[in-house]
Amino acid sequence: MEDNCSNKICGDKKKLIARANRVEGQIRGIKRMIEEDAYCDDVLNQISSAKAALDGIAKVILENHLRKCVVSGIKNNEENKVIDELIYTLGKMMK
Amino acid sequence: MEDNCSNKICGDKKKLIARANRVEGQIRGIKRMIEEDAYCDDVLNQISSAKAALDGIAKVILENHLRKCVVSGIKNNEENKVIDELIYTLGKMMK
Amino acid sequence: MEDNCSNKICGDKKKLIARANRVEGQIRGIKRMIEEDAYCDDVLNQISSAKAALDGIAKVILENHLRKCVVSGIKNNEENKVIDELIYTLGKMMK
Amino acid sequence: MEDNCSNKICGDKKKLIARANRVEGQIRGIKRMIEEDAYCDDVLNQISSAKAALDGIAKVILENHLRKCVVSGIKNNEENKVIDELIYTLGKMMK
Repeated sequence: MEDNCSNKICGDKKKLIARANRVEGQIRGIKRMIEEDAYCDDVLNQISSAKAALDGIAKVILENHLRKCVVSGIKNNEENKVIDELIYTLGKMMK
Repeated sequence: MEDNCSNKICGDKKKLIARANRVEGQIRGIKRMIEEDAYCDDVLNQISSAKAALDGIAKVILENHLRKCVVSGIKNNEENKVIDELIYTLGKMMK
Repeated sequence: MEDNCSNKICGDKKKLIARANRVEGQIRGIKRMIEEDAYCDDVLNQISSAKAALDGIAKVILENHLRKCVVSGIKNNEENKVIDELIYTLGKMMK
Repeated sequence: MEDNCSNKICGDKKKLIARANRVEGQIRGIKRMIEEDAYCDDVLNQISSAKAALDGIAKVILENHLRKCVVSGIKNNEENKVIDELIYTLGKMMK
């Protein structure tokens, strides 16, 4: 049985940080656009792109979380804790 | 009639930059969580919070954009351009 | 200038009703699946499809509404009313 | 261990059907609004309400599915099948 993954992030850490770095760059770009009076539509489209990039990161983490933590948690009879957390997390993701 | 707002961002620039700064801090927090092997659910919830904060910024810009640029553009008979852009922008926001 | 469209639906009425009929059929299909104890994932996927179909209808109506009612309303100096309504509507669509 | 729930819907069947009936009524209301040339904003808001009602039904089914089928499937060593399906379903729900 796999280890409970509560003490390591789910997913390829290096790639996830590289993706988060790109989002950070996008946010800085958005700040610069606001400062330099960019056209509203362009700022809004950049915000949509940053959100889509965050969704991409979340999707990777969620998929790994399901395959690792959730499976091992349930096999270790911690289903109540694991599923309660998952429902809370999915609720926030779907809002 | 109001000026066409294509050369100034729609909304209180100072407040918008302050909000974008907070999002930038959230993204750095997410990177740190990934580096330090935070629990997946906690990272996912932080990503949802950053997305909600970006939505808040977009909502302010969109509302001001509608009240200013869209109204003045249409009054200046640029409705085709203004509405085409708006439909594209809303399409990205709703995806 | 176009007429204010407050007394006719924005979009091809016949096509919109045909699409709404298909959604009604999807909802009846979902009810049947629930009654016949279909597998949860299949029911959830049908619900997602019905939501996507509703989004498709909403997109057509919104686009036509922007091109017709919103433009004519603003040209008739009713921008406050028209934009207030639009912001409320978009707020509900984006929730 | 609970039974694998693949042969019964997750959730209180009677209540779920009652909720689906209400959505069906909403869709018929939307068709009537389109036929009677209701104001676009009103139709769009009704569509948003129907989507929210479908989300409510999906949320109940998903929560029960996680607590029952997913848990029992994993305990029965069918994690690959169960998690693959779940990822597909969540992907459609989050689109």
